Amino acid sequence: MSKVDTVDGPKYLKQSKALVDHLLDEYLPSSDVEPRSLHEAMRYSLMAGGKRLRPVLALAAYEYCGGTKDNAPDTIHRAMAALEMIHTYSLIHDDLPCMDDDDLRRGLPTCHKKFGEATAVLAGDALHVVAFHLMAMTGSNKAVIELAEAVGTSGMLGGQIADMEAEGTKPTHEIVKNIHKRKTGALINASVRIGAMMAQADPLMLDRLTTYGENIGLAFQIIDDILDIQGDEKIIGKQPGSDSKKQKATYPEAIGIEKAKEEAALLVDKALSVFEEYEDNVLTFIARFIGQREC
Amino acid sequence: MSKVDTVDGPKYLKQSKALVDHLLDEYLPSSDVEPRSLHEAMRYSLMAGGKRLRPVLALAAYEYCGGTKDNAPDTIHRAMAALEMIHTYSLIHDDLPCMDDDDLRRGLPTCHKKFGEATAVLAGDALHVVAFHLMAMTGSNKAVIELAEAVGTSGMLGGQIADMEAEGTKPTHEIVKNIHKRKTGALINASVRIGAMMAQADPLMLDRLTTYGENIGLAFQIIDDILDIQGDEKIIGKQPGSDSKKQKATYPEAIGIEKAKEEAALLVDKALSVFEEYEDNVLTFIARFIGQREC
Repeated sequence: MSKVDTVDGPKYLKQSKALVDHLLDEYLPSSDVEPRSLHEAMRYSLMAGGKRLRPVLALAAYEYCGGTKDNAPDTIHRAMAALEMIHTYSLIHDDLPCMDDDDLRRGLPTCHKKFGEATAVLAGDALHVVAFHLMAMTGSNKAVIELAEAVGTSGMLGGQIADMEAEGTKPTHEIVKNIHKRKTGALINASVRIGAMMAQADPLMLDRLTTYGENIGLAFQIIDDILDIQGDEKIIGKQPGSDSKKQKATYPEAIGIEKAKEEAALLVDKALSVFEEYEDNVLTFIARFIGQREC
Repeated sequence: MSKVDTVDGPKYLKQSKALVDHLLDEYLPSSDVEPRSLHEAMRYSLMAGGKRLRPVLALAAYEYCGGTKDNAPDTIHRAMAALEMIHTYSLIHDDLPCMDDDDLRRGLPTCHKKFGEATAVLAGDALHVVAFHLMAMTGSNKAVIELAEAVGTSGMLGGQIADMEAEGTKPTHEIVKNIHKRKTGALINASVRIGAMMAQADPLMLDRLTTYGENIGLAFQIIDDILDIQGDEKIIGKQPGSDSKKQKATYPEAIGIEKAKEEAALLVDKALSVFEEYEDNVLTFIARFIGQREC
């Protein structure tokens, strides 16, 4: 168990985030290449930082299932970049004036504020298609289908419209759970599953990691809701209270902040339950990290 | 050559258009299924009619290359639906207020006029992802990559931004050719190629059909530009002169209407040149149809 005992979670997160930044830079066309304005807008939003949670989860699941960095790295690397591109495309479209109408993202002007609305719509569309291009280049049709299911109307996009339609209504526990599972959870779970698929995980392993992915996906969004109320502006990088201003359907709104915290902790425990008790690996580290995160 | 002699082009177009309508209805989730508003908006735009040129071309290329309707029809059918969904998604986003700001499409209110801007953005996104889902379900990774290349920044999206950026400038022949090849030509050519790929066409055949696809793709858009000036409102379904009002980069604007007609005719001839002289099949029929179309 020496490998398990020596996991250095923070170092892993830092190194794999750097790897993601490098991959995104490598796979995106340069802003010197035509159409320059579109490539520039795509790069601007994609390179603006962030936790890179989805590709890091994919890498961690890949390695947990026996994939190594030397074993066809292009495959897992392309999948990682694709997952982050999908996430960024969804943020660009979500920030548009007709959607959440946000001026700032990660402390910087949002894509449409910087480049105009038309370019932002197209930059989101372009990241969407480059993501599918990269995923297809892994050679795994199954991974393309997995990604499409996570993004489609029963996944992320279904969650986005439900989220929009729930604005200004008093959400029930069931409704907000359903929104969060789709809007945020589906892509997080798909990231874990696609990482495992790239390492040829067997169906039993895939099932275990699905339980992990579903639970951390929902926990992540519940904690996001809580941070929007209790987070430190300097740490979360935005003014707290924005969900409430937009009358968003959130967990604290539906069941209160204490019960929301309890549910998030329970979900993290459920995610950890697929591992041996006291097992310490990158995936368990990330689950605990999500449970305790401050940004 | 009896098969060749008996091609009934108009009947083929009518029957395959009906097939496309049927397939789209089959592959799209019902508007009774949640998220209903999103499914309804997707259906509204997708079922509003149109020539269904891209899927019809895919089917014609598939059959030309020896694919039959009984030979794994799901494969070519999914590809056909995917191509039309990509086309429709691009129209929905193109019509948005921040883009072309069109109120009418095929005589009906545009998606954002009917359902609001936010739903229109998401409906476009959703058709985009369902298209990739369906293409991946054909089992052909190559076709997914082909589609992604046609849609991406060196294809349709690159053409869309170049088109937008050229508004209000005096376009050169070279610039407008480049815009049209990407904005319209890339997906038309990919439709022909993907149809051929689904029938396992060999590289030589694929090369021939690429020459065909590239030339009819550009010809189609040049004739679209001409119809926007000379077309009959009742036939083309929109007020003529809209390109000019929006100061769009068009062929007539760049080289004059007569030279534009000559170039379109030349391109149709080039497309026909990959077949035997006087060969009469569905693909040659479509090329001539494009050359003479009135809507």
